[in-house]
Amino acid sequence: MRFEQSLEKVHRHIDDHFSAHLKKVQEYVRQPSISADGTGIKETANMTKGFIEDLGGKARLVPTDGWPVVYGELWSDAKKTLVIYGMYDVQPVEEETGMWMVPPFGGKIVNMKTFGKCLVNRGAVNTKAPLRAFFNACQSILKVEGKLPVNLIFAIEGEEELGSRHLPQFIQKYQKQLARAHAVFFPIPAQDPKGKVIMELGVKGIIYMDLVCQGGKWGGPTKRGIHSANAAWVDSPVWRLFWALTSMKTPAGKITIEDFYKNVSPPSREEVQLLKKLEKTFDEKTIREEIDVLHFSEDLHGIELLRRYLYSPTINMDGIVAGYTGSGTKTVLPHLVRAKVDIRLVPHMQTEEIIRKFKNHLKKHGFTDIKVKIHDCYPWAQVSMKEKCVQAMTRTYEKHGYKPEIWPRIGGSAPFYLFNQPPLSLPFVIGGLGHGSRAHSPNEYFVVEGIRSNEKSIATFLYEYAYGK
Amino acid sequence: MRFEQSLEKVHRHIDDHFSAHLKKVQEYVRQPSISADGTGIKETANMTKGFIEDLGGKARLVPTDGWPVVYGELWSDAKKTLVIYGMYDVQPVEEETGMWMVPPFGGKIVNMKTFGKCLVNRGAVNTKAPLRAFFNACQSILKVEGKLPVNLIFAIEGEEELGSRHLPQFIQKYQKQLARAHAVFFPIPAQDPKGKVIMELGVKGIIYMDLVCQGGKWGGPTKRGIHSANAAWVDSPVWRLFWALTSMKTPAGKITIEDFYKNVSPPSREEVQLLKKLEKTFDEKTIREEIDVLHFSEDLHGIELLRRYLYSPTINMDGIVAGYTGSGTKTVLPHLVRAKVDIRLVPHMQTEEIIRKFKNHLKKHGFTDIKVKIHDCYPWAQVSMKEKCVQAMTRTYEKHGYKPEIWPRIGGSAPFYLFNQPPLSLPFVIGGLGHGSRAHSPNEYFVVEGIRSNEKSIATFLYEYAYGK
Repeated sequence: MRFEQSLEKVHRHIDDHFSAHLKKVQEYVRQPSISADGTGIKETANMTKGFIEDLGGKARLVPTDGWPVVYGELWSDAKKTLVIYGMYDVQPVEEETGMWMVPPFGGKIVNMKTFGKCLVNRGAVNTKAPLRAFFNACQSILKVEGKLPVNLIFAIEGEEELGSRHLPQFIQKYQKQLARAHAVFFPIPAQDPKGKVIMELGVKGIIYMDLVCQGGKWGGPTKRGIHSANAAWVDSPVWRLFWALTSMKTPAGKITIEDFYKNVSPPSREEVQLLKKLEKTFDEKTIREEIDVLHFSEDLHGIELLRRYLYSPTINMDGIVAGYTGSGTKTVLPHLVRAKVDIRLVPHMQTEEIIRKFKNHLKKHGFTDIKVKIHDCYPWAQVSMKEKCVQAMTRTYEKHGYKPEIWPRIGGSAPFYLFNQPPLSLPFVIGGLGHGSRAHSPNEYFVVEGIRSNEKSIATFLYEYAYGK
Repeated sequence: MRFEQSLEKVHRHIDDHFSAHLKKVQEYVRQPSISADGTGIKETANMTKGFIEDLGGKARLVPTDGWPVVYGELWSDAKKTLVIYGMYDVQPVEEETGMWMVPPFGGKIVNMKTFGKCLVNRGAVNTKAPLRAFFNACQSILKVEGKLPVNLIFAIEGEEELGSRHLPQFIQKYQKQLARAHAVFFPIPAQDPKGKVIMELGVKGIIYMDLVCQGGKWGGPTKRGIHSANAAWVDSPVWRLFWALTSMKTPAGKITIEDFYKNVSPPSREEVQLLKKLEKTFDEKTIREEIDVLHFSEDLHGIELLRRYLYSPTINMDGIVAGYTGSGTKTVLPHLVRAKVDIRLVPHMQTEEIIRKFKNHLKKHGFTDIKVKIHDCYPWAQVSMKEKCVQAMTRTYEKHGYKPEIWPRIGGSAPFYLFNQPPLSLPFVIGGLGHGSRAHSPNEYFVVEGIRSNEKSIATFLYEYAYGK
């Protein structure tokens, strides 16, 4: 029972120093780090490096062809070694102007109706605040015990929101160092708005692309928007993109690209078991409220809705812009339309194969001129709930009085395949207590009391993974 | 032959004072007057009022629910009275950033490869520069002859680029004054890039609207963009708008709204005659080059292309915007998409009927939630080439050594119906010498030597209309 006593002291230390811990979280999220345009990336990378050094670890910025990866080691002569995978970058805020209740990088604590005090800031939940909370938890352990129960290897990237474009370069370069680890941990608060713990065993894959349709040999204005009187005899790139896109999907959401669903697997035996349990506690109303949606696609419910979420690949329109979008009227036939599209892949779809099918579809339907620029793509990843790191997290939740609701995967994506696939073949686990939401949206938040419980759960998890059974 | 001698003196006066005239044109276009957001509207209205007063006329700003109309009178005890219809507003420039060779309101004279010295500015051709050139021509007549050959009534609006939304208020208020006129003249330079004079007898009608699709009872995120992981179980307003729009039109351009083409008339007897002549001189290559288009829709040519242009109603996408449109990647399922659409109407389509059919189509296809906001709409208008004002303009061109190519109408729109339909029932004519282009586009220009010949042709037209036969 030695470790439970240590843990109690650590938890007390977190309580006693929580206001200082919270300040550190605020300080970190206040520092913008928008990977899309580079704002504050350098400053944040150095700040993150400093966090590892403050714990007594060694850290460096590993250059890549994109933003650097913060690599660090904190050795405790422990039996087990965890890779702390994380990200110091955040999503842009530019098209959310006027929709934030406080400035997106103000680090403000706001009283929210349902949750009480919340940190409202870009990165409050996804994922700079949880990352700093992880460091806070480690600091408390070190203060109380002098050393951590596990060795830590840090791999904190600055391009997660860009699809981790250059993380493979780092993984290859540091393969030997990373191979010493037994598992990967990605700290993210896992409680829903009602406090239920949701545990996800995997992620979908993603292909993110820009589509550009411009006037050219096929027709349309080639150089600039022209007077829309010409629409009678000149074709439109905007309409052309509409036809290209609507040729790929039915209004009911079925993707009509040839063989698109070919490698989509039905639930595995473990997943069937998980789904049976999940169906009983699945709280669709709370999810709907969290994302401000009145009903789900085709008004699905229960197991059907879960299957749709978990086993559907998607083609999503992230954004589109063409022509005049200001106030009033301007009659113009635009020469150019740009769209941003993401495709989410479920097991066992292959990224390269889907890109090929997508491009072939355009070609087959005569849209050879539409430019496809792949920003990033990576496959799905998923672990079994039998993995030791997953079991340690399950016990952590239980020790804190929660019974986790286990999902085979989340609808989002993260580059766990880099760790999970050969040569590293490491299992991974995502989690921690606390509630936050509105990732990629205005008013992203993390409940302040959730930051406290998150730090405690991190400490518990590290001990459980080291010594629990 | 008295008037030919006067005219000769007037033309010489224009030559002798052309550099001063050009400065006045530059001064006028340098003053921004963007009706879409109100930039410089007040200043420009007052400037325009001052132009009429400088000629010795009386002028006032007539308030409307939108921007004021500059009304003026300049009486010469002449037998004939012309309404000078014009506009002091211009199109916005905001989405053309970086595409102008000079600042859009710099009033710069630029040496252009094909044309030599050109005034490059928003409003250089559409239509502040030609309007100021009209005043210059009048000034020269007054200096030489002491009075104009016709009485002038000025109706210069500030909302043409907004679809002349409040011009009907003015027309109603000033019906009595306007009823004294015999015809309406809209000064616009009418030469193509090769110098050929193109004369248009009418305009198409227009309906300009905003379409907004937002998450709501039908599905989709209702308040804000959400993480695109949700695309698996939450519907998308962007895709929904795509399906709504593509349900209205085939890729070949055929509009599938029920009975949309019902009132489209075949060419009249006069039009058949005009088309036969037009076909012989119609220079599609020059038009393609002017609008930077490699080929027309369905690669049409000759009479087929002319018929497509003149007799096709259109649904044009002027602009669309949704979600993230910045650099890099952001995975978001937007809650809102906004599109700007214009419909051009040919004789004898009715605006109200087409709006009803458009809305019915959305309803019939289940898109009742898509909001349709009509910015403005007005019908087509067309006169016979037998009208005295048209004949005077034809003679004007011939006296200057040009044989005009006559088109039944232009693909664009202007609110001539307000003058042409009862109770006023006035004929109208559009024209003047000179070449300019790129209306509604970056680098809008007016060839400097064309400004000179434009002023001369205006003087000729006023005399031809007053005394010619």
